Amino acid sequence: MIFILKPHATEQDAKQLLDQIEAAGLKPLYMPGVERTVIGAIGDERVLNSLHLDFHPLVDEVKPILSSYKLVSRELYPIDTRVKIGNFAVGGEAFTVIAGPCAVESQQQLDGIADYLTQHKVAAIRGGAYKPRTSPYSFQGLGEEGLKILKATSERSGLPTVSEIVDANDAELMAQYVDCLQIGARNMQNFRLLEAVGKLQTPVLLKRGMSATIEELLLAAEYIVNAGNPNVILCERGIRTYETATRNTLDLNAVAYLKQKTHLPVLVDPSHGTGVRDLVIPLSRAAAAVGADGIIVETHTNPAQALSDGHQNLDPQQFDDLMSSMKPFVEAAGRSL
Amino acid sequence: MIFILKPHATEQDAKQLLDQIEAAGLKPLYMPGVERTVIGAIGDERVLNSLHLDFHPLVDEVKPILSSYKLVSRELYPIDTRVKIGNFAVGGEAFTVIAGPCAVESQQQLDGIADYLTQHKVAAIRGGAYKPRTSPYSFQGLGEEGLKILKATSERSGLPTVSEIVDANDAELMAQYVDCLQIGARNMQNFRLLEAVGKLQTPVLLKRGMSATIEELLLAAEYIVNAGNPNVILCERGIRTYETATRNTLDLNAVAYLKQKTHLPVLVDPSHGTGVRDLVIPLSRAAAAVGADGIIVETHTNPAQALSDGHQNLDPQQFDDLMSSMKPFVEAAGRSL
Amino acid sequence: MIFILKPHATEQDAKQLLDQIEAAGLKPLYMPGVERTVIGAIGDERVLNSLHLDFHPLVDEVKPILSSYKLVSRELYPIDTRVKIGNFAVGGEAFTVIAGPCAVESQQQLDGIADYLTQHKVAAIRGGAYKPRTSPYSFQGLGEEGLKILKATSERSGLPTVSEIVDANDAELMAQYVDCLQIGARNMQNFRLLEAVGKLQTPVLLKRGMSATIEELLLAAEYIVNAGNPNVILCERGIRTYETATRNTLDLNAVAYLKQKTHLPVLVDPSHGTGVRDLVIPLSRAAAAVGADGIIVETHTNPAQALSDGHQNLDPQQFDDLMSSMKPFVEAAGRSL
Amino acid sequence: MIFILKPHATEQDAKQLLDQIEAAGLKPLYMPGVERTVIGAIGDERVLNSLHLDFHPLVDEVKPILSSYKLVSRELYPIDTRVKIGNFAVGGEAFTVIAGPCAVESQQQLDGIADYLTQHKVAAIRGGAYKPRTSPYSFQGLGEEGLKILKATSERSGLPTVSEIVDANDAELMAQYVDCLQIGARNMQNFRLLEAVGKLQTPVLLKRGMSATIEELLLAAEYIVNAGNPNVILCERGIRTYETATRNTLDLNAVAYLKQKTHLPVLVDPSHGTGVRDLVIPLSRAAAAVGADGIIVETHTNPAQALSDGHQNLDPQQFDDLMSSMKPFVEAAGRSL
Repeated sequence: MIFILKPHATEQDAKQLLDQIEAAGLKPLYMPGVERTVIGAIGDERVLNSLHLDFHPLVDEVKPILSSYKLVSRELYPIDTRVKIGNFAVGGEAFTVIAGPCAVESQQQLDGIADYLTQHKVAAIRGGAYKPRTSPYSFQGLGEEGLKILKATSERSGLPTVSEIVDANDAELMAQYVDCLQIGARNMQNFRLLEAVGKLQTPVLLKRGMSATIEELLLAAEYIVNAGNPNVILCERGIRTYETATRNTLDLNAVAYLKQKTHLPVLVDPSHGTGVRDLVIPLSRAAAAVGADGIIVETHTNPAQALSDGHQNLDPQQFDDLMSSMKPFVEAAGRSL
Repeated sequence: MIFILKPHATEQDAKQLLDQIEAAGLKPLYMPGVERTVIGAIGDERVLNSLHLDFHPLVDEVKPILSSYKLVSRELYPIDTRVKIGNFAVGGEAFTVIAGPCAVESQQQLDGIADYLTQHKVAAIRGGAYKPRTSPYSFQGLGEEGLKILKATSERSGLPTVSEIVDANDAELMAQYVDCLQIGARNMQNFRLLEAVGKLQTPVLLKRGMSATIEELLLAAEYIVNAGNPNVILCERGIRTYETATRNTLDLNAVAYLKQKTHLPVLVDPSHGTGVRDLVIPLSRAAAAVGADGIIVETHTNPAQALSDGHQNLDPQQFDDLMSSMKPFVEAAGRSL
Repeated sequence: MIFILKPHATEQDAKQLLDQIEAAGLKPLYMPGVERTVIGAIGDERVLNSLHLDFHPLVDEVKPILSSYKLVSRELYPIDTRVKIGNFAVGGEAFTVIAGPCAVESQQQLDGIADYLTQHKVAAIRGGAYKPRTSPYSFQGLGEEGLKILKATSERSGLPTVSEIVDANDAELMAQYVDCLQIGARNMQNFRLLEAVGKLQTPVLLKRGMSATIEELLLAAEYIVNAGNPNVILCERGIRTYETATRNTLDLNAVAYLKQKTHLPVLVDPSHGTGVRDLVIPLSRAAAAVGADGIIVETHTNPAQALSDGHQNLDPQQFDDLMSSMKPFVEAAGRSL
Repeated sequence: MIFILKPHATEQDAKQLLDQIEAAGLKPLYMPGVERTVIGAIGDERVLNSLHLDFHPLVDEVKPILSSYKLVSRELYPIDTRVKIGNFAVGGEAFTVIAGPCAVESQQQLDGIADYLTQHKVAAIRGGAYKPRTSPYSFQGLGEEGLKILKATSERSGLPTVSEIVDANDAELMAQYVDCLQIGARNMQNFRLLEAVGKLQTPVLLKRGMSATIEELLLAAEYIVNAGNPNVILCERGIRTYETATRNTLDLNAVAYLKQKTHLPVLVDPSHGTGVRDLVIPLSRAAAAVGADGIIVETHTNPAQALSDGHQNLDPQQFDDLMSSMKPFVEAAGRSL
């Protein structure tokens, strides 16, 4: 850790800090400059957090050297992690496609969607039973009834299921019904929820917060792994920017960057990442090309009657087009679909 | 609500939509243009949400006319709401100052801070017992022990208390210990939490999410009021932008805008809003000038030893300076301090 | 165009506006609602700009229906435009690769780079003679000397050249030396410069501004085409967001969106779009997959000694890797490399 | 300057860098850590730019210690600079108010506005003769005719004038007509323009770019001062964020921060900074409170007929209200109006 002192800090001031660094078991370094004095602390700088040297009135800036996450870092575990949802290994050779409606609406709706998904190599069916909605007047999901529908569809179709968890209390209940718990963008820093799913072994699909940095996403994953659950799948779903032509700005830089920094699998959500149905196919192709381990995409048998987010849903014909359009790009990336 | 149809939509297509609008009890309007056809729906457009006309394949864009919030809107309730924390009316003539440490650390720490706060006209003391921290390795708060310390300090000093709630389950427990529940930026769209505090009558200090729009903040407040708790105080605490010189960008436009659109009181958090101790005083003055109902500010007897966010804490001398520096601006705004 | 009136506007107020709309030759529409009155103007709404109805004190909001650009719109010209740089048709079947150093440094440097570029199917060599630099103390380019070097390298290697123009006065001079004029992100709204290159027939590579919306990019292109030069190539080069792990956030949503809205060719700059050498290859692959017409990428024989932006330059080996890594994705997109 | 090496860098690699630093006349520092090696360079790190050590393949990150601007820094010149526009000293005890229309439209229009401005303590009248407009179809200004109108109004009313320059070629011409040259947000990094006004002694009002960092604004000012013109006034005019309720997000953090870092005067533009007429007064009050040296505000005798930006213009009555509403805040800040 590097500390840049304020211009008027004296040698005496510096010595005090150096002593504190040494007392914490780190190697102190003194770098007096012409305009500014710089102090270094060599060792596991994470122990310095408890010293709060950054709040020292004579410290102008603190520059950490090490990343703040560990367990999810590729520096520590260089080998790719594979997370199994049912029998499907996310992060393996096969490109992951998770598809389904934004919200579970009825048994008939979900079975209808499962019917056409099973005609393709799909890893799992998704569908929300608890929907976090911006307005209290929007459809909030079917709750446990929705979970039962998911379970029934899964048993009938053989497809594993992914569904969003919005409350730490629901963790055990949901784990009985679904094969993978999704944490939505709005809850990426709901730390109680992260700890709750960290106590299970059920796979967790962790979506990047709407304006979360890549480092914050990795630290959110670190919460889950640190609590005991190594089965974490990351998901880029678009970030909030000034651009209004698309609902979000899909950050594929982040996908390539994450693949270099972490051993966890990384999916892309082109539905929320664009918010525009016509952009889902090109961005799915780009996701495959940039090195993502798969996509999670919204589909519906009748988008015009979807109870939420219909604007970005694919209908069966469009889903067919997506799969055949992605195929050569998935293969160019050395994977199968 | 206005619907702009795609260029190739026919008159026949338009008629279908017009019929659906009429069937929903709204007045339909047909506006065929040279390049595009536009359709209007006059009436309470919120009922249209269930029709999902926006997902119709021939609808290119939907432009709502009415705001999506109601109960918190000044159009419905033009009179300023006053929310009482203990005996102090937030939103009234007196300018609200809530101060205290980021985290409750010990009885001695909090009593020490209360001692100098009571020398000023302070509305309440703040302090976190449950701390939502980006990294799992940072100090997470004292939990219920912290709530007990808050209660004891409150009884000793006479100051009401404000503390952050991070889990819907804690609502009843916390309401027994503290006088105002804070919902932090990361939880602004934790809808379960909003509903939980909506079932109480304890005042809620709702912070704007890190990248929440003003409308989303008002809709989050609408969740609480709609669930039954009208005692909501809004708080602008800085938004995330590309600028890195300050930790966040304090959005005082939002404060002036909110005061025009809602009857709820609006506070400003200059500590998180800037993240830089030296900027707290000028931005507090600006908050008073722009029309905020008060500020919530981080103070500590010894910022260099604070267990979190020491970088932006004021020490007792700086807090004195803040209060005397703000006074003429508060008075210029027609209020008292 | 749709006008939403303020809540207290009367029928009388509405009539005034309707009369003005009619007098301008458009068809007025009156839509009195329960909470708000809405007024429509059907026809070429661009003529309404001169009426400034949006500034009317009783108008709360104005919602345009038509896009504000015309000449560059695919609605007007549905056929893809091909822009020739030398003999290479950008926007045609062959995927465009423009490569070269950030800045022209010497004849030897540029010839060295041209030597390895000519071993690949490269459309043109790029290199800046005039460098817009954030700091006045950074290398500012060789000026006309740099243009001469470009010309000499072009004659020797047969590669057409692309170079940035930063001043309207240089337009004629530069057009004598180079085959394509680049307008950099910082100058995307330097309207004098847009008009100056609009008077030539030399192809223009127009980069999206650092925080320009897609619509503003299209309007900047409209300036050039409207001034008489139809040979415009758009370029997505990353936008400024809150994320700091990468220098910019490459917006591939924008590329797919632009390909749908405009007939102009669209390139991607993965060097500036990421600012990180290790991300250039995956994002170039993604650019091909998303439907871009090509890439413009920074290369150098010795990145460690580049006079600017060396951090994101590819060396010859990395450029070879880029070309072979992109090939299957370019072909999957139905193009050749 | 601090260099963090990649994990696999050897002691040998580090030695090479240390030698280069020493050869450049700086003091090298070697800090081998457990996980990473860090290297320091003590001295005027700006000379290191030419070494391009940051592009070295073994350097992972570079952390500068010194700010990149000098001449505009308060560290070098601690005393506030006052810039005279006509007889008015911007940055002095009197709070600066510059007002006038977005665009000069006619002699009558400008004289009318000057008539009511002279009833107040206004420093100068503003008005654009050259308008940079997003669309080529919008009103582009009267050009030199507009400058003549400005000059005539100035002679008649005694008010000095401020007008925007958009082309380096116009510098000499404009300096003959107006008392202060404005550089607009879109041209903040038009370096040719910065250099051109740097060769004059006419005061320059430099607006922050729409998404420029504070450091980039200071570097743009450094260009002008470095070219020979010390008479620079900075202006915060709102930045582009995800928020759409207001046209821009006025960044008053930046104003307080700038006042600490630079000796140059800092104005605020609440008209563009909010884009909403009703927010101009509260944000002007906040600007005075936060420590700005003044404001620049758009006014018109008839906003509904303004040829550009009427939406944010104040009419004479509103301007009166602004002045009387700001007065107590200006005085609370220890200044006069």
